[in-house]
Amino acid sequence: MNHAAIYHRPESEFAYLYKKDLMRIRLQTARNEIKSVGLISGDFYTFGAEKWYKKQQAMRKAYTTDTHDYWEIEVTATHRRLAYAFCITDFQGNSVFYTDQGIFEHEEYRLSHDNLYFRMPYFQEIDRFKIPDWVPQTVWYQIFPERFYNGDLSNDPEAVLAWGSEAPTRGNFFGGDLQGVIDKLDYLEDLGITGIYLCPIFTAPSNHKYDTVDYYEVDPHFGNKQVFRELVEKAHERGMRVMLDAVFNHLGASSHQWQDVILHGADSSYADWFHIDSFPPRYTPIPGSEQAENLNYDTFSFVPNMPKLNTENPEVQEFLLAIATYWIREFDIDGWRLDVANEVDHHFWKEFRQAVLQQKEDLYILGEIWHSSQRWLEGDEFHAVMNYAFTDSIKAFFVEESITISQMIFGMNRQQLLYRDQTNEVSFNLLDSHDTPRLLTLCRGNKELLRSALTFMFIQKGTPCIFYGTEAGLEGEMDPGCRVCMDWEDPDQELYTFTKQLIALRKQFSEVFSLGTMEWHYDDDKKTFSLTRQYKEKTIVATFNEGEKLIFAKQGRRLFGQNYHENGNYQLNKHGFVIEEL
Amino acid sequence: MNHAAIYHRPESEFAYLYKKDLMRIRLQTARNEIKSVGLISGDFYTFGAEKWYKKQQAMRKAYTTDTHDYWEIEVTATHRRLAYAFCITDFQGNSVFYTDQGIFEHEEYRLSHDNLYFRMPYFQEIDRFKIPDWVPQTVWYQIFPERFYNGDLSNDPEAVLAWGSEAPTRGNFFGGDLQGVIDKLDYLEDLGITGIYLCPIFTAPSNHKYDTVDYYEVDPHFGNKQVFRELVEKAHERGMRVMLDAVFNHLGASSHQWQDVILHGADSSYADWFHIDSFPPRYTPIPGSEQAENLNYDTFSFVPNMPKLNTENPEVQEFLLAIATYWIREFDIDGWRLDVANEVDHHFWKEFRQAVLQQKEDLYILGEIWHSSQRWLEGDEFHAVMNYAFTDSIKAFFVEESITISQMIFGMNRQQLLYRDQTNEVSFNLLDSHDTPRLLTLCRGNKELLRSALTFMFIQKGTPCIFYGTEAGLEGEMDPGCRVCMDWEDPDQELYTFTKQLIALRKQFSEVFSLGTMEWHYDDDKKTFSLTRQYKEKTIVATFNEGEKLIFAKQGRRLFGQNYHENGNYQLNKHGFVIEEL
Repeated sequence: MNHAAIYHRPESEFAYLYKKDLMRIRLQTARNEIKSVGLISGDFYTFGAEKWYKKQQAMRKAYTTDTHDYWEIEVTATHRRLAYAFCITDFQGNSVFYTDQGIFEHEEYRLSHDNLYFRMPYFQEIDRFKIPDWVPQTVWYQIFPERFYNGDLSNDPEAVLAWGSEAPTRGNFFGGDLQGVIDKLDYLEDLGITGIYLCPIFTAPSNHKYDTVDYYEVDPHFGNKQVFRELVEKAHERGMRVMLDAVFNHLGASSHQWQDVILHGADSSYADWFHIDSFPPRYTPIPGSEQAENLNYDTFSFVPNMPKLNTENPEVQEFLLAIATYWIREFDIDGWRLDVANEVDHHFWKEFRQAVLQQKEDLYILGEIWHSSQRWLEGDEFHAVMNYAFTDSIKAFFVEESITISQMIFGMNRQQLLYRDQTNEVSFNLLDSHDTPRLLTLCRGNKELLRSALTFMFIQKGTPCIFYGTEAGLEGEMDPGCRVCMDWEDPDQELYTFTKQLIALRKQFSEVFSLGTMEWHYDDDKKTFSLTRQYKEKTIVATFNEGEKLIFAKQGRRLFGQNYHENGNYQLNKHGFVIEEL
Repeated sequence: MNHAAIYHRPESEFAYLYKKDLMRIRLQTARNEIKSVGLISGDFYTFGAEKWYKKQQAMRKAYTTDTHDYWEIEVTATHRRLAYAFCITDFQGNSVFYTDQGIFEHEEYRLSHDNLYFRMPYFQEIDRFKIPDWVPQTVWYQIFPERFYNGDLSNDPEAVLAWGSEAPTRGNFFGGDLQGVIDKLDYLEDLGITGIYLCPIFTAPSNHKYDTVDYYEVDPHFGNKQVFRELVEKAHERGMRVMLDAVFNHLGASSHQWQDVILHGADSSYADWFHIDSFPPRYTPIPGSEQAENLNYDTFSFVPNMPKLNTENPEVQEFLLAIATYWIREFDIDGWRLDVANEVDHHFWKEFRQAVLQQKEDLYILGEIWHSSQRWLEGDEFHAVMNYAFTDSIKAFFVEESITISQMIFGMNRQQLLYRDQTNEVSFNLLDSHDTPRLLTLCRGNKELLRSALTFMFIQKGTPCIFYGTEAGLEGEMDPGCRVCMDWEDPDQELYTFTKQLIALRKQFSEVFSLGTMEWHYDDDKKTFSLTRQYKEKTIVATFNEGEKLIFAKQGRRLFGQNYHENGNYQLNKHGFVIEEL
């Protein structure tokens, strides 16, 4: 047995309270080597008296990756305390006992010591990772306001260009605004959207507004607070939530705080608001680039216009927390998406969470982190992160064709195994955004492929997000290319209808997609697979074909599909899929 | 290569800031399989431009356990940001790249993606795990006040027995008190003690005082606040720190809060201070036991006299935090040892840390936890835990003879690998306490064996603690047996002198014992080993023999030893050891 592959970590994503007084426990073993795992568990204080260490509960093999199998079980405990260990048996029938002090082969001797056991010392409800109830059911729509719709011509920037008349650049403007979003709420409602994620709306000189100048004002080219208030109210009337983008890692260089530092150097009362090695702040521009060299202060990346905020400074903390709560209190927003969240300190995010949840208990906190994010997802910082690392596997199989189906599944599993299931249920799944090429462009214009990939994402755990215009057939390369103007004149009607149906399917079966077990059957060579999701009495089977022709038997009631023929059996052509309810 | 054995966890004990802007990184691989590991690292934002992914820094094999090798390296980063991955090469010359998205065999393809890298996104000084400077140099002495010395006959309990006239029981009293500790400060100073850990001193009916009635009063049989103030002041004058025991998991049933609940049931203003399933609280006593059955409220273990506090209740939080800060503010204590710390919620301990460190920046926070404690040792709760799981390996080899030397080393390493090195440097190492049999009893009265085991513990990373009377030759079984009266009449003078010398050695070389690298040479069959500790220009070699005769060459200047003959070579007899400085 591969002892070195066995891993468990108490009080982590491997052992956590899922619901009140209900624990989920995971165990890692080597792939395809272990036949069964039993959980040995009981109350630490009755160890000797009850001899519970002689009993086992079978764990379920729940996930597989390229290297490991993962076993899962749900347990309760009468006295809200659990001591536990694992009995692991391989296909040859060899068993070992895996404990808090390692692996032992001799059961009776080792199990006589209560201190060998892993512990969940008490089921602390206050420490349990909790998520907002509404998020798992939400279908998001990401709007880059400058490019969605120009609802108010009177607030256009001076240099505004005719809508969609040019390719998007780092510097050009097309006049999109918040009135434009209000004007299109009927459109979003018809599509089925229940959550709007707005890229930054606060005053900032750029078209993307990630260089904030004033966190207390809506950018005048986007509108004003009254318009924003109306947007939130009208969205709420339609049952839509609104999430704003909090750019707290850095300020814009035009902000009065940074300008004060430029003016007064070390004497500025904002000198300690940033990370400045020596005064005055300086850098060497790189011609043709937003980036610079020889910076003597910290910035986002090497962008001199985005000086990094010193969130260790209590004044800065207070400043940012006041902003975070202001927009909740005054405008009733429902979520904060945190830009460059990984480069801001944990201490701050813990304060942030307390402050915003005190203001609104069910606010959604979403971090922009592209890499493993366990440390931010322990229950006292974010609810979830933008799930690029998860959806990258979907893109790599469907779109780039650079990995096999099994690699895709392993990659997706690998990501889900980093987090508690609460996080997985509210993860922000997206195939494109303002920071990536557009999905249709990645699909080389192939809309059938786009529909397959999008559908596959929609049937996963986590909440799906559509980048504005994906439903209209927009294309665009890596940013700024992806930030094209929404096509209101000649949108792809077929894609719109498809997306609307997909959203309706997701909402109809949101519980099974959000909570259901996953069972895979796949053929890497033929590039076909099926995924069965099951929750309570509901079972959904989705069959996808990215290879040549696939024939398979009809199993249940067809809910949705593409590129299929049905005649007793199904025939799926390339990029075909069928979703059935059993 | 055993891919399934490879493990790294970003922002954990596997990747952390050790000093300001200095990161330590660990990697786990299968044991005895990997020849070298290279760290590939650089600034995320210069990935493509600088092509730093083509360079590697060699990692050092720092620890081995029964199943794994662990590799370590220290790194800095110009811009306080690090992206990193590992190049792992086995003895056959096969290499893989281990990244944030798994293991890859094809370097050039995979290293072209910056998002594959593990990340320390920014070196956040505010999040860095910090420890009080004074702790690593401290040699502790644990006092169970009722049994140390009776310095004031006027405050004796009514039922006081003559000192040491009977075996200790759960219920008897011998009159030890705080004046007794003051009276013996000269003794402790002579011994070399620099930290006193006092078991609970607050008002409580039992002899152990873990059933607190009034956290704001010194138990009248122990003295009063004035006596305690004098104790702290006189200890401080001698350069000794004082740590108190905080019993915050539960109250004593005689407390006015619990009595109020007994009296008023659900109407008590303290009804929500506890975890009571139904009113009135009830239980079925078990004759002859402190424990009970059929409790309808939560307690420590099943002890009805110790109702568990509901630390989710803000009133309880406020109550306990006020106590925690009061004793620091008013009496200038230096540490809190937290009783049953694992059963109190993390939310509370985070508040606790902030509150007490705000009161005294270098206060030591020590949790009583016997199992893996990663979650409490992330930098925002405790500094360390009582290191039973670490010293259990020492006892199992030296005293119980139930494991081999290699198993002892693996067990010790396993514990150290659970934590950041900051924690390991301030871990509270102990071979016995008021909750275990006494060391000499475990050693079956063999003082040579006791001296070997104690010496070995003293040369480890972490701060050693002597349970009162170990230096006097006290014996005692599991509590209450171990809580015997200190022998002031006929203490073991030889053992005292030995302990005094051992403490002096530890203090003279505290830096190398606290921070030095570990290099082991051992022979499991012959039961002999040497441990080399090296730090800066200092090198200490300690050679131990628990088998039959061992002959080895003198290497340096002898500092300390037992059961040896020197004649050019050393001859170590059983339980012999020699410590040399190279």
